[in-house]
Amino acid sequence: MRDRAVILVSGGLDSATVLAMARNEGFALHALSVDYGQRHCSELDAATRVCKTAAVKAHKIVTIDLRSIGGSALTEDLDVPRTGVGNSIPITYVPARNTIMLSVAMAWAEVLGAADVFIGVNAVDYSGYPDCRPEFISAFQQLARVATKSAIEGRTLQLHTPLIHLSKAEIIRKGMKLGVNYEQTVSCYQADPKGRACGVCDSCRIRRAGFVQAGVPDPTRYWQGT
Amino acid sequence: MRDRAVILVSGGLDSATVLAMARNEGFALHALSVDYGQRHCSELDAATRVCKTAAVKAHKIVTIDLRSIGGSALTEDLDVPRTGVGNSIPITYVPARNTIMLSVAMAWAEVLGAADVFIGVNAVDYSGYPDCRPEFISAFQQLARVATKSAIEGRTLQLHTPLIHLSKAEIIRKGMKLGVNYEQTVSCYQADPKGRACGVCDSCRIRRAGFVQAGVPDPTRYWQGT
Repeated sequence: MRDRAVILVSGGLDSATVLAMARNEGFALHALSVDYGQRHCSELDAATRVCKTAAVKAHKIVTIDLRSIGGSALTEDLDVPRTGVGNSIPITYVPARNTIMLSVAMAWAEVLGAADVFIGVNAVDYSGYPDCRPEFISAFQQLARVATKSAIEGRTLQLHTPLIHLSKAEIIRKGMKLGVNYEQTVSCYQADPKGRACGVCDSCRIRRAGFVQAGVPDPTRYWQGT
Repeated sequence: MRDRAVILVSGGLDSATVLAMARNEGFALHALSVDYGQRHCSELDAATRVCKTAAVKAHKIVTIDLRSIGGSALTEDLDVPRTGVGNSIPITYVPARNTIMLSVAMAWAEVLGAADVFIGVNAVDYSGYPDCRPEFISAFQQLARVATKSAIEGRTLQLHTPLIHLSKAEIIRKGMKLGVNYEQTVSCYQADPKGRACGVCDSCRIRRAGFVQAGVPDPTRYWQGT
């Protein structure tokens, strides 16, 4: 039997690439999406499409009500920035999101007897989120060594962050080689219910520039600003 | 204005004591309970009673569906142990529960601008859960130093675990001095809908022995086995 791995799949470009990489490494794919009250459900629809195409063994969507916590443009009714990525962390930052999602992934991995968790964090072409940095990942890796029954029994969880040092263009090139269909993915902070992107928010701008730099036609469906 | 603190309140004896200790230290109390699909809702009812008595500023109940993850007698339909605490970690262990709850507490603390989070973990009279140990708390403390926007901006979160090295009897004595009404709390793994305890599960046995050792009358309402 192939080793099981839990892969966090948001429905975006990065996590779709990570899913393909984990598949390429031969893992039995257990995809995990978190419904945290993001403003549009097209992200989760995209996650479902991506998981179906990748023929995952299981796709679990866990509900965590982060709307009741608030503090982000993605969980509250605030405008998302479209002015480009600056030096400060933008209001699309969701407090502790990756800590929460990795915690749930760790829980599921323990139940599955899986020793591997994949997450598509990226510290190059990103918005400066603290929980996308190598320091964060290595601190969570340390935590995983002591946090679970499995860890105590000697089965340490290994976090995989294969995109962390790649540019968006490099990620796209890697995914294209592995046959990822990026048309299925949604990166936009304010996609419409059909999953069409705005083309102007920071996430769209980073993604679009990535396709340009990769020299790959952008398959993203836009509802404006193309 | 008094400093805000987030206190994880489960409705059990330990967290009720921690809440009283945080109040005694002068914090503006922001209580957080997690509805993770525990088998009975009387725990959350107890949390609500305890928070009302402590006159908290806010009590938030966040829903996280850990039933869909499973792997524990507390989230699945399995019998809870009543044979006493042994060397192995019992099936009442919920995978990554404290990691998940601390993550959500960290998120809320960040939104509130709070620098303090209290959790009633205890490594003395407990069931051997990995995420109640000092090693775990210190690893989460390290994680908190790099995980959030607040941390990057220099406001590090401080975890408070005032019960971690106390026996159950010491916890009870401390709470009694601070006026905690333990009748309001529910520790039982299989309490009935009215919050009455079974008296025979491991959690009941540890609690009951604590009252005996503390020389304090046990106010717990039992539905059998008294």
